[in-house]
Parts: sequence; C-alpha cells; structure tokens
Amino acid sequence: MRRDDLQRDADGGLKHFLTIDGLDRPLLTEILDRAEGFLGVSEQAVKKVPLCRGKIIANLFFENSTRTRTTFELAAKRLSADVLNLNIGTSSTSKGETLLDTLRNLEAMHVDMFVVRHNVSGAAHFFAQHAAPHISVINAGDGSHSHPTQAMLDMFTIRRHKGDFGQLTVAIVGDILHSRVARSQIHALRGLGTGEVRVIGPRTLIPAPVEDLDVRIFHDLREGVRDADVVIMLRLQRERMTGALLPSEREYFHLYGLTEAQLETAKPDAIVMHPGPINRGVEMDSQVADGPRSVILEQVSNGIAVRMAIMSMCIGSQNRRSQGEGDG
Amino acid sequence: MRRDDLQRDADGGLKHFLTIDGLDRPLLTEILDRAEGFLGVSEQAVKKVPLCRGKIIANLFFENSTRTRTTFELAAKRLSADVLNLNIGTSSTSKGETLLDTLRNLEAMHVDMFVVRHNVSGAAHFFAQHAAPHISVINAGDGSHSHPTQAMLDMFTIRRHKGDFGQLTVAIVGDILHSRVARSQIHALRGLGTGEVRVIGPRTLIPAPVEDLDVRIFHDLREGVRDADVVIMLRLQRERMTGALLPSEREYFHLYGLTEAQLETAKPDAIVMHPGPINRGVEMDSQVADGPRSVILEQVSNGIAVRMAIMSMCIGSQNRRSQGEGDG
Amino acid sequence: MRRDDLQRDADGGLKHFLTIDGLDRPLLTEILDRAEGFLGVSEQAVKKVPLCRGKIIANLFFENSTRTRTTFELAAKRLSADVLNLNIGTSSTSKGETLLDTLRNLEAMHVDMFVVRHNVSGAAHFFAQHAAPHISVINAGDGSHSHPTQAMLDMFTIRRHKGDFGQLTVAIVGDILHSRVARSQIHALRGLGTGEVRVIGPRTLIPAPVEDLDVRIFHDLREGVRDADVVIMLRLQRERMTGALLPSEREYFHLYGLTEAQLETAKPDAIVMHPGPINRGVEMDSQVADGPRSVILEQVSNGIAVRMAIMSMCIGSQNRRSQGEGDG
Repeated sequence: MRRDDLQRDADGGLKHFLTIDGLDRPLLTEILDRAEGFLGVSEQAVKKVPLCRGKIIANLFFENSTRTRTTFELAAKRLSADVLNLNIGTSSTSKGETLLDTLRNLEAMHVDMFVVRHNVSGAAHFFAQHAAPHISVINAGDGSHSHPTQAMLDMFTIRRHKGDFGQLTVAIVGDILHSRVARSQIHALRGLGTGEVRVIGPRTLIPAPVEDLDVRIFHDLREGVRDADVVIMLRLQRERMTGALLPSEREYFHLYGLTEAQLETAKPDAIVMHPGPINRGVEMDSQVADGPRSVILEQVSNGIAVRMAIMSMCIGSQNRRSQGEGDG
Repeated sequence: MRRDDLQRDADGGLKHFLTIDGLDRPLLTEILDRAEGFLGVSEQAVKKVPLCRGKIIANLFFENSTRTRTTFELAAKRLSADVLNLNIGTSSTSKGETLLDTLRNLEAMHVDMFVVRHNVSGAAHFFAQHAAPHISVINAGDGSHSHPTQAMLDMFTIRRHKGDFGQLTVAIVGDILHSRVARSQIHALRGLGTGEVRVIGPRTLIPAPVEDLDVRIFHDLREGVRDADVVIMLRLQRERMTGALLPSEREYFHLYGLTEAQLETAKPDAIVMHPGPINRGVEMDSQVADGPRSVILEQVSNGIAVRMAIMSMCIGSQNRRSQGEGDG
Repeated sequence: MRRDDLQRDADGGLKHFLTIDGLDRPLLTEILDRAEGFLGVSEQAVKKVPLCRGKIIANLFFENSTRTRTTFELAAKRLSADVLNLNIGTSSTSKGETLLDTLRNLEAMHVDMFVVRHNVSGAAHFFAQHAAPHISVINAGDGSHSHPTQAMLDMFTIRRHKGDFGQLTVAIVGDILHSRVARSQIHALRGLGTGEVRVIGPRTLIPAPVEDLDVRIFHDLREGVRDADVVIMLRLQRERMTGALLPSEREYFHLYGLTEAQLETAKPDAIVMHPGPINRGVEMDSQVADGPRSVILEQVSNGIAVRMAIMSMCIGSQNRRSQGEGDG
C-alpha cells in the first residue's frame, strides 16, 4: 500500500495525515484553502466552531513538546472537541504495555483521533496501519522522518505573503540531516510547484539522498539566500546531534547564523521563517528574529488554523464514511 | 454504620460507590441496566449527554494510573461534567497538608464528586465518612481492599455475553492475595447469584479468609477452569509483591499462565477476561489475549458506560436530596 | 508609568490585575461587589455562567501550586472559558526559550488571559508590560512581592463577616518579611480604609519599610491580637526561609502559634484566617483551625467568586476595547 493510499479514504478525502510525501497538489491546496477559512475563528469573540463537538481527540506525546501539544489542543478546542492529554512516557508503557496494546485500549475507549508524536520514525504510520477504520491519526512529528503539520503551516504562511508558489525561490538553512521539518517542507514545496527549492548547510548536515528531491544544494549562506523570496531557518536540534558533526555553536553561527548582513543578497521583500523555539545567537540573531522580515509569530498563529483544517477534514471523512455505513 | 448504609441515601439510592460488599442484587442490577443505556452514547456522533452539566468531578489519584484516570475522565466528559485532574502525590500533601485538609479544601471549592485512588485500604471510605452531605465519593481502587468499578464493568461484560448469572461457573485466576479486583469481583459475583465462583492460584497467593466468601479453591489451572463459562485472569502486581511468594515469572507462566492448551477443559464458548494492562507471556500468552474468546477490549469499552452509570446515579441522588431540601 | 495605570484601561476599568498597590477604594469595592454576585453560581445545579465562553485562559505556573492553579481553573471554567494549563518549568524554558519568546508565542496562539505565578518578583508586571493590547495578565503570586487575588478574597471574607472596614482592627501574624500575601493584604486593608492594621512577628521577620505602610508593629502575640476583630495567620514559608531567622518550629509555635489561650485577648467575635495550607502545630493548633472562629474554608470558597469577578472584569475591559475599535 502506498503511503498516500493509507492517508486517503475511498473518495480521495483525507483520512489520516501522516506525511506530505505522496499528497497531490489539489489536496495540499484544499488544506490551505480550508485553513484560510479558520483564520477568522481566532479573531472572533467566541473562538469556537462546532465541527468536532462530542469528538474525543487524544494527544499521544511519547516525546515531550508542550508547544506543539498546546497548538493541537487549542485547535481541537476551537473545533469544540474534547481533548485527552496522555503523556505516554510516564504511563502504560512503564507498566510493560506494548504500543499496540495502548492503541487498542484507546480505541476501545472510543477515541476518534490520535495526535501522535514519537521519537521513532514511522510511529504515526504504525498507528494508522493498525487503527480501527473509524479512527484518524495525525503525525505531530516522528523521529527524523516527518512533521507534516509544521510544513503545511509554513506553506500557508508563504502563500499568504507571496501568493503563487511557481515564481518563488525558497531556501532552507541548517541541519537538514536531522530535520523532519526540512524533509516535510521540501515535499510540500515540491508538491505545490515551487520555482526553486534550495538547501543550505555544512556538508556533514546535508544527506546525500536530498538531491533526488530536486533541490539545489549550497554550503555558503550568502550564496544560498541570493535572490530568495523565502528563507526558512531550521532549529538546531542539539539534543538530536550524535557525534561531533559541528565544531561549536559559535562556529555554526559564524557560518550559518542569519544576520542582516547575511540576508543582504536575498530579495528586499524576502520573509524569514523559523519553526521555533529559536536559539537566539545560534540559528539567527535577535535583529533578524524580531525584525520586519520575520514572520515567525505569524507561523504560530497560522499553525492553529492549519491544524483545525486538517483535523476537521479527517473528522469530515469519518462522518461521511459512517453515514455511508448507515445508508448501506 | 454498615458500609452499605454509608453508600446509600435515605431513599436507598446510590450516594457513594465504595465497595461491592453489602450492596444488594437490585442495586447491582440497576447499575448494569443503566450502563446498558449508556453503551450507545459512545457510538453517537456527539458522544455526550447533559446529565452532569455544570458539575465538577475531581480525580484524586494518590496512586498513579493513567488508564483508570482516563476512563473516569472520559465517562465524566460524556456526562458533560467538568473534570479536575489532581495528581496529589506532587501537590498539597508535599506541603504537609493532611488528607482531611485536602478534602475540606476541595469541598470548599464546591467540587461535586471525588474519584479517589489511593494505595492505602480504606482511603475512599475515609473520604466518604468525612465529606459534606452534598458530595459523592467513588472508589477507583484502595490498597488491596476494593476496586468496585472494575468489578462492575466485569459483571456487565459477563452479563452481555452470558445472560443470567445463576447458571454460570466463573473462575478467577492469579494473585488473589494482593488483588483488590478479585475481592470486588467475588462480592459482585456472589451478590448477583452466580452459580459457582472459583479462585485458582498458588497456595501462597490465596488468603485463608477467602473460603468464607463461598468460593471453591483450586491450585491446578486445568482443573480450575474445567467447564468454566468465564475465566478471569488477574494482573500480576509485580510492584505489590513483597518477599519471594513466587519462584519466577517464567515458573508462574508455566503453572498459571493461560494458553489455548490450558483452556481446553473450559466450556467451548468460555470467555476470557483481564483488567489490563496484560503482562503478555506472564498471565497469558498472546494467542489467548488476542484470540476469539478474549473480551478484554470490550471490558475497556464497557468500563466507560459502567462508570457513566455509577457517576450519574450518585449525581442523581445529590439532585434528589437538594430538591428535597428546597421543598422542605 | 505608574503601576495602577498599567492595570487600568482608558475608561478606568480593570485591564490587568497585578498588585493592590495603587488601586483606589472604588475599584477594590467594585471587585468585592462583583464577587458577591458570583457567590451564588457555586450553589447552582449548573455551576456556570457564559461570560467568558470561547475565551482561552492560560495558567502559566513557573512555580508549582496545585491549590492556587485549581481555584483559577475552577473560576475560569465557571465563566465557561477554555483553560490551558502550562507547567512552564518543564517545557519551553528548558529548551532555552526566553520569557519574552514564551509570551509572544502564546499571544500568537490568541490566548486571551495569562494567569502568572513566578518565583521572581515583577514577573507578572513584565508580562503585562510586554503583552499585546488585547491580553490581560493576572498575578497569581510573584516572588515575595504580591499575591493580590489572595488579598482580595481575604477582604471579601472580612467584609462578609464584619461589614464596614472603618471600624475594624485587623492583625496579621507571622513571617511578614517573606510574605507576598501580607504585603498585598496591607495594601488592600489600607485601601479599603481599615481602622487599624497591625503586624505581629519576631523582629527578624518584620522588614523595616513596613512602617511606611501605616501599620502598628507588635512582637508579642497576646498584645498584638488584643481587641482585634480579625486575626490573619500567615503560612510559614519553610521553603523560602534562607538562613537561620528562626530558632525552630517548636519555638516559633510557642511564641507565635495561635491557640485558644493566645486568642483570649481578641474580641469575642473575632474571626481567624489563614491562606492555607496550614502547618498544624506551627502557625496554629487544630483547636483554632477547626474551631468556631475559623473562616479558613470560607476563604477557599470565596476565592473562586473573587477570581471570577477579577477575570470577568478584565475580559469585560477587553470586550469594551475591541468593540470600541469596531465602532471607530
């Protein structure tokens, strides 16, 4: 079964959201269009729509991330769902329960959607493969594989500023090797027909297979951002660095840290992005992070609208399928 | 005051739910009948009924159990209550506050119901004895004493598969000595008029007073499950085992672990139960756990309906009593 | 900018609630009057009013306090808000994020109100100074500086028992030096025109500048409570005591622990207060804590009504201001 098949229902609707790889342009565009409609909900006095009322959404975070969990929780609550926060590290698995037993038990409790974050690549796919048909799984980051909701909120932010992707040059800077975010961004940018996608970083942090993804590789920051419309900085995953791939953070900042000087070669109206939290003075200096070209906080706001879009599309697929059963 | 008196209001309704011991057959049956009505709620698109809207239910877990807490939380949310999760181990008691002060403070916050789990036997009774009249207490497991909601969901599962208890032979296998679940199951099975109740386990793990409960004792698994309609496996509470009552887990599995071969003497349509989480390869092998006779995941689903039944009956008693005051 | 200016909107309404210092009598009285109206909500069958429906209130507790967090959570839920509990100690700051980045990110998620507790004095002010205009900040305790909601619930409790403040003698007993509660109480009592405010404690625990606050200082407990209408005991913050300011808890109790004997000189109808949790046998004995003059549990109940009042006033200010924008 191809991965995109696992993600889609019989009508081509979104059933799970696991990876960008294999999703086509109309579906990616539908997610962005839907998110557009949800942007306004956060501005309303009553920040709620009843699309997921009575649904149970479980946050299964095997890897701790308060920030990402919070955005999913807020998105779920704005859709009027009930949210269950399960910090799995400290619960059943410590009693020797297998991942599959955890899944089966939560299924038996009639949870409707799992938001899964795990430090092992493929964990969300595993859940989706084994989940009962009425359940949706959303990947909130698995190992160094994929972080598709982050990529979609980045695409949404780019589209709001730059419109059509066909004319754009987008540069991704940093630790491409360990970044599930980068991998998902590249698939999304390619899927949306981006003019040129570049990756920039030291040789040790750019994996060889990245060339197959149709990107241009740069090792010099100033060269890489030349005439770019969008510069996406990655977070230096210090906790994920194994071995001495980098001399020091200071050296890294000297070579790949974004400053106003380094940005000089980019287009004058280029936007600067970062998934957060920023290591100030490592990936970029504060002048850039808080400067007029930074859209970093917009990314956070957009993240809630994009997650609402994805969640509501998956729940919509469930509703259509259960009505189908009723009709049949 | 007899324990059942503490649990009932002046009209005989359920005020607290602390122990099965002393509850009569009509009340046990009423709980099962009510739960039947709640089963459907989990299947609805909007999984909610407004029976406890505006009520505050506090989960007081002095002993950590994500799984049990989650089922109570889901049951409460489906009844539209607001849920307060208090992990007491890390809060007020660490500031030197007494149990009674904790109770009085939560009472003063107008909490309506306490779900109490504690590693000391009698903790839930203590809360019920000292709680203000408008508050209900539900025992979610106290020491090695009682775990009455688990027993009721087991009864519910048995009734749905086997109907009338009068004709049934039910075997409980494992560490009877340390099991609050077994104690509550025996009381519930006896209270519902079960034909024959058996306990099976090594001599060191079957306490002498169990004979007074009108059960047959077996030390051989194949003999014990002969012609049984229901086989209930207990979880081996490794964390509760003090001293060397068992040679090893391997030896335990050899003697008391359930396999298809050991099940051969049971009735062909016998069902196999376990409160979860399973120690696969200790209490039973995966062939049985995931096999056609296993109803283990149904137990989880039924647990939510049964807890909704018990919670709504207690809140109903509160409402009747407060209306009574209003009338008087 | 004066502190009270930061706390108020252009119409003089309450925008943030950071400190009692600088708030005038009409505003303090308005809070108490509003809280009066909310007392009844906790007595209703459905303990909810829709004043903050669809609003997101984030509990940012950098310093752990289950009790205080719970009362804010209950207050928010009774106002129908959605609550986000963020235990910041274990999240973003551990990834090296600055306080300002945390604030900006939560702002970007369209949180409407921050309830901030921090062990550094001025933390809530910092948040209020840097927050976007549509956000309110409530101080739930900052360092040894201020704990204004606790002080207001104490004032509310006093007014319900004693009426007009002008005729009252109020004695505050204990570790004045380290107590943010005492500081806020003194400002509130003075602001409401209390007849006489006294502080009682060992010389080492009464800071010199307290004299400027127009209070009488006593070092002898029996002398200090003579003819008092209200005796407020402070909690001995053992965790905050640096160095050997006290000989021992036993010695402290002997000199400053409240007993019926020590209370003899107070007015016969004097009330005894404590912010909780009580160290029984240190600040007071159980005879007093549980005796007829103790209003300690009423304080807890009143705390929810007072917090509802303050939260709804701040949200009301937001609503007026955003409507103003709409009209302009």
